[in-house]
Amino acid sequence: MSQEKKYASIHYASYLGLDRVLDAQHPRSASTGKEAHDEMLFIIIHQVYELWFKQILHEVDSVMRIFSSETTEERAIDLAVHRLHRVNEILALLIKQIGILETMTPLDFLEFRAQLFPASGFQSFQFRKLEVLLGLKMDRRVAYTPYAYYREFSPDQQDEIRSLEASPSLFDRIEAWLERMPFLQIEDFDFEKKYLQAVSGMLERERQAIRQSDYLSEEEKNMRLKMNGDSDTFFANIFNPEFHGQQIAQGNIRLSYRAALSALLIQLYGSEPLLQLPCRLLNAIADMDEQLTTWRYRHAQMVLRMLGRKTGTGGSSGHDYLMETARKHQIFLDFHHISTLLIPRSELPELPPRLKALLGYAYRPSTP
Amino acid sequence: MSQEKKYASIHYASYLGLDRVLDAQHPRSASTGKEAHDEMLFIIIHQVYELWFKQILHEVDSVMRIFSSETTEERAIDLAVHRLHRVNEILALLIKQIGILETMTPLDFLEFRAQLFPASGFQSFQFRKLEVLLGLKMDRRVAYTPYAYYREFSPDQQDEIRSLEASPSLFDRIEAWLERMPFLQIEDFDFEKKYLQAVSGMLERERQAIRQSDYLSEEEKNMRLKMNGDSDTFFANIFNPEFHGQQIAQGNIRLSYRAALSALLIQLYGSEPLLQLPCRLLNAIADMDEQLTTWRYRHAQMVLRMLGRKTGTGGSSGHDYLMETARKHQIFLDFHHISTLLIPRSELPELPPRLKALLGYAYRPSTP
Amino acid sequence: MSQEKKYASIHYASYLGLDRVLDAQHPRSASTGKEAHDEMLFIIIHQVYELWFKQILHEVDSVMRIFSSETTEERAIDLAVHRLHRVNEILALLIKQIGILETMTPLDFLEFRAQLFPASGFQSFQFRKLEVLLGLKMDRRVAYTPYAYYREFSPDQQDEIRSLEASPSLFDRIEAWLERMPFLQIEDFDFEKKYLQAVSGMLERERQAIRQSDYLSEEEKNMRLKMNGDSDTFFANIFNPEFHGQQIAQGNIRLSYRAALSALLIQLYGSEPLLQLPCRLLNAIADMDEQLTTWRYRHAQMVLRMLGRKTGTGGSSGHDYLMETARKHQIFLDFHHISTLLIPRSELPELPPRLKALLGYAYRPSTP
Amino acid sequence: MSQEKKYASIHYASYLGLDRVLDAQHPRSASTGKEAHDEMLFIIIHQVYELWFKQILHEVDSVMRIFSSETTEERAIDLAVHRLHRVNEILALLIKQIGILETMTPLDFLEFRAQLFPASGFQSFQFRKLEVLLGLKMDRRVAYTPYAYYREFSPDQQDEIRSLEASPSLFDRIEAWLERMPFLQIEDFDFEKKYLQAVSGMLERERQAIRQSDYLSEEEKNMRLKMNGDSDTFFANIFNPEFHGQQIAQGNIRLSYRAALSALLIQLYGSEPLLQLPCRLLNAIADMDEQLTTWRYRHAQMVLRMLGRKTGTGGSSGHDYLMETARKHQIFLDFHHISTLLIPRSELPELPPRLKALLGYAYRPSTP
Repeated sequence: MSQEKKYASIHYASYLGLDRVLDAQHPRSASTGKEAHDEMLFIIIHQVYELWFKQILHEVDSVMRIFSSETTEERAIDLAVHRLHRVNEILALLIKQIGILETMTPLDFLEFRAQLFPASGFQSFQFRKLEVLLGLKMDRRVAYTPYAYYREFSPDQQDEIRSLEASPSLFDRIEAWLERMPFLQIEDFDFEKKYLQAVSGMLERERQAIRQSDYLSEEEKNMRLKMNGDSDTFFANIFNPEFHGQQIAQGNIRLSYRAALSALLIQLYGSEPLLQLPCRLLNAIADMDEQLTTWRYRHAQMVLRMLGRKTGTGGSSGHDYLMETARKHQIFLDFHHISTLLIPRSELPELPPRLKALLGYAYRPSTP
Repeated sequence: MSQEKKYASIHYASYLGLDRVLDAQHPRSASTGKEAHDEMLFIIIHQVYELWFKQILHEVDSVMRIFSSETTEERAIDLAVHRLHRVNEILALLIKQIGILETMTPLDFLEFRAQLFPASGFQSFQFRKLEVLLGLKMDRRVAYTPYAYYREFSPDQQDEIRSLEASPSLFDRIEAWLERMPFLQIEDFDFEKKYLQAVSGMLERERQAIRQSDYLSEEEKNMRLKMNGDSDTFFANIFNPEFHGQQIAQGNIRLSYRAALSALLIQLYGSEPLLQLPCRLLNAIADMDEQLTTWRYRHAQMVLRMLGRKTGTGGSSGHDYLMETARKHQIFLDFHHISTLLIPRSELPELPPRLKALLGYAYRPSTP
Repeated sequence: MSQEKKYASIHYASYLGLDRVLDAQHPRSASTGKEAHDEMLFIIIHQVYELWFKQILHEVDSVMRIFSSETTEERAIDLAVHRLHRVNEILALLIKQIGILETMTPLDFLEFRAQLFPASGFQSFQFRKLEVLLGLKMDRRVAYTPYAYYREFSPDQQDEIRSLEASPSLFDRIEAWLERMPFLQIEDFDFEKKYLQAVSGMLERERQAIRQSDYLSEEEKNMRLKMNGDSDTFFANIFNPEFHGQQIAQGNIRLSYRAALSALLIQLYGSEPLLQLPCRLLNAIADMDEQLTTWRYRHAQMVLRMLGRKTGTGGSSGHDYLMETARKHQIFLDFHHISTLLIPRSELPELPPRLKALLGYAYRPSTP
Repeated sequence: MSQEKKYASIHYASYLGLDRVLDAQHPRSASTGKEAHDEMLFIIIHQVYELWFKQILHEVDSVMRIFSSETTEERAIDLAVHRLHRVNEILALLIKQIGILETMTPLDFLEFRAQLFPASGFQSFQFRKLEVLLGLKMDRRVAYTPYAYYREFSPDQQDEIRSLEASPSLFDRIEAWLERMPFLQIEDFDFEKKYLQAVSGMLERERQAIRQSDYLSEEEKNMRLKMNGDSDTFFANIFNPEFHGQQIAQGNIRLSYRAALSALLIQLYGSEPLLQLPCRLLNAIADMDEQLTTWRYRHAQMVLRMLGRKTGTGGSSGHDYLMETARKHQIFLDFHHISTLLIPRSELPELPPRLKALLGYAYRPSTP
């Protein structure tokens, strides 16, 4: 039996397509007759990034399918959480990986940088695709050049991006799933009303703590009271559908009123069996958002160090542009802001027994 | 011989003062009769931070002593680099450590947060001291409350901070050491002149690459040329003592003209034996600056997640304040900007043999 | 109001007991008149380890309480998993932390090592306590000196260790909890029988794959068949209570037959809502066991590098002793071995509908 | 101008060969009609490993070239250290990366494991090549199957491996470089003699410390004295060329007598300018050796967890085999053992001024 056929059937090298993967490194500096040693690192680390992006897309796609249908089964949420955790492990690695690129000195980079022009990381189709899938909207993008970012891609890729931008993102699907949640109002239990009562009680206690402090000067007390006053207003407003609507209209908030309420319910009662998975899901998404932001910061820092104030090969302003994306390309910010609304367990409204039972398991130690 | 005396002389526990260290955890929530399980983590992780701050101060102090004298010996620079590497290892750990605090949910934090008021991380004397030692100037500080930050500390601590602010910082000492460097002008070698000649040659080649590109539209070419034009201007300006002086006056730059020249020389000829250590030193400082910035970002993210838009127990605006410090409290930014001035080795002016010899070792294989 | 009282009530420094924590570093080399710079690192890193050990004990204690009672509530398992995850985050940090100690060169260590004798890490009471709580039995301990390890501790500490060794460990409590699991036999569903049928079917298919391989030589096929034969025997044996009993008697296995069965059921059907938490619990314990083992290896490597073949200040053989503990002090090995018994989902016996329903949530979209 | 040609010249995607790299993932489970979701991760993570192996080989090759010639220039050693640091950064990432594979549960692995048989990681040509380049000798290899490991590879690959095994490895080249070091005996300075005098003085002091201890029982004192006696003997022996020769003959040691002496000199006087780079080189090699060992351990743990006592698809005993390689495939063990011979700086023989000057820089502040 021939080596080839044998390999084709079962060898490690053929299974992994190593003939192609390990033959795709062609330093351009070699063509100049004087190969720059570090260009190999530059090529390989970017190929590794793209491989991981493919894996992340594989996971995110499967998570989006789980939240595509009208009825999302709990069993499936367990899977979604598991896969988002994997994405987060990968993102943590990609952040650490920047440290390897930083073993290349700015001088070593300059040995071949001119060869790259005008290729640029902005041309990574998979990363753009990921941003769109997660929910980065065109109108929130920081423009790094005077012309639209589509032109970096082939016609087919442009069509794919455009159609993805026209379809519901992960953000949209999670929002829809939250809006479908049935527990905001069950029989005589009105979560919104109960919660607002609890909040005002708590805020009153906080105001007293300030007034009675023997550490703060009068001036400071007033400052603190004003601050709490603000958050009081905020609490009141956030639960005012009209105000919330205005905030969305002004682009300060994206998450719908009802979805925000459900997210809050989940965070507050996340230890009830039926809400444990939804709670872990929201945390996994917040983790992912946080890691992506960290990755952008580290990337910006690395560029600052490598290039100082030089412009990127793609023509961007380099560091400053990347820092701006780190701030403006954050997608799930509203999920972090839910924390603003949390209150101590001791202040939590008791759930009615009937609801508590519904949120538990079918099995009871008393059962068979 | 008594257990006590024996221990006093040599036991692990007495050597580490564990009786005190492990008896310093007193959750305030316990006093309310209902101890919050996670307050222990909150206390211990902050104590660990403070222990590491003490270690970092121990290393930074020793590095500052090395650069205090008029003549800094090479042997000593090796030590300084070694200790800054240690500081960077510690900072990397402190960044990772934030992940442990993030295992505390916002709800668990709220169980005891009210007890902490008005104590706050802003009251960490060691961290303030570190910032001042490294070179964070009062006028660059982001104010988080209407009143000066001194009042957080005891009178003695206030005096110590003020006297440190009045003495040369690590930034000042490194700058002075760079200014003392003797190699900018040796006999007929004038680094500044040679370098500027090399730069203009390189920029001309870059402009040609843009003009001849068959990928860019005319519009884009002009944009690129304008950008390079800018960096051309920048190159010209940075080496204009007057312009540099204005930049310093306006607070855009801190590093003196001569120090910047030396730093550039070191980066460009860092492979010469005598310049290897200075080069590693500048990189270690840039690493430290980068890590401190990363730590601030991660800290800000963690606060966003824990509190959303709530105000800090210390009365700051929380997340927004911390993000601003991450941007404005960076101390060694000018050292990153040196990269703007780097050019490929192929463009580097040759060093005269006499200077090259001086930068080498006394020993020559030919010698003994 | 006096500075003191004010601080006593609320300042960051007093809350954290920094006056004691930051005053507990007394390098012994200082007494020789020539302080070794790196002894400070040696002291502080060990104090940090002890602080984290206290935190780990705080979490492990709470987990043990959860599994102390006859009836462990699901809500509580969620908490146990959450806290074990925290322990694992901490252990990951402690492993990384070894890298900081490795910034101390062997020569720098020798500057003060003689001062430490005969103090030693073996005298860490908290670490011993942790080992005992988790379930490390006296008879499995590697002896590092001719005399028992108790004598390192004060009489009170010795009593505490002895009483802990006499009480149920975390291993014992998890085992008991697994034995209590009600799902091995419900009505006509006999997990053990169903599983064994599935296994024999799968093994037969594997044997065929080997026989039909056109890659393997006859010799290799026989070898493979023999290997599988072995695991076949193993499968058969593991589910033979007598054989299992012998293995326990010989000290090859610790986990009881019934507990092993429950652990297997949990791993195989871990996606059923009611089994999700138990499954995450077993994984968290396996993680913890793996991390502790990694920590021991890294510790042993660090000692090898620092001391080579020198003996430890405590009188142990240093590296070799630590390597042996890494192998023999692993406590939850049987939980890793469960994987030997896993089979593909496609081979899994279907659960009877009645049982499937019991393992689900009380709430059904159809319900209210 | 056509899309293709344009891209061929300069686009990110063509530069990185993404058409090939991202088209090389073909899960075999797909052919069964039921694709296992996690096989994609399994493929991609192994491709990433292979890409990094290629990068590591790129760096190790360049380091070996540096040490191939009779005269290794200091400037070049700086480069070697820099590139070994990069290798170590990469290895640290590969260790962390195992955590990502561990997000795949044993059950998920079983979904496609049967498809892989008999492919196996043992068939990674690049990893075998790396082991051989570093210096892993055929006779030290742990055999995982009855037949030689060559047969896993194509005829060309087998030839390459065999010729590499016949050429000097990195170990051999570093050893030769150490043997060439000229400083063991310069004029009247005989390092070996001076060092042995210092050692005996130090050992005598240690023996006294034991005898005078009021903590140890007589029995313990004798034990300690015996131990030190041993290390005394060891010290004496290691510097006995005949004994050293026997140790090599018995395979307990690999590093030649003269090379070991030079390595010791470098470690002891590593702060002298000319020895700083050699010292950093030895540390970088020790780091690499330590990381490779850690990687093997983590790999073994991961396999234990994934498969328990199952045999590997390649036919090895899985976990036990990997653990054995972790112990026996360590290549630079002798470099760690140098630490056994280190003594405190206070005990170090003073270098004669003439030698001290030779080890310094040509430039003296007094010079020009």
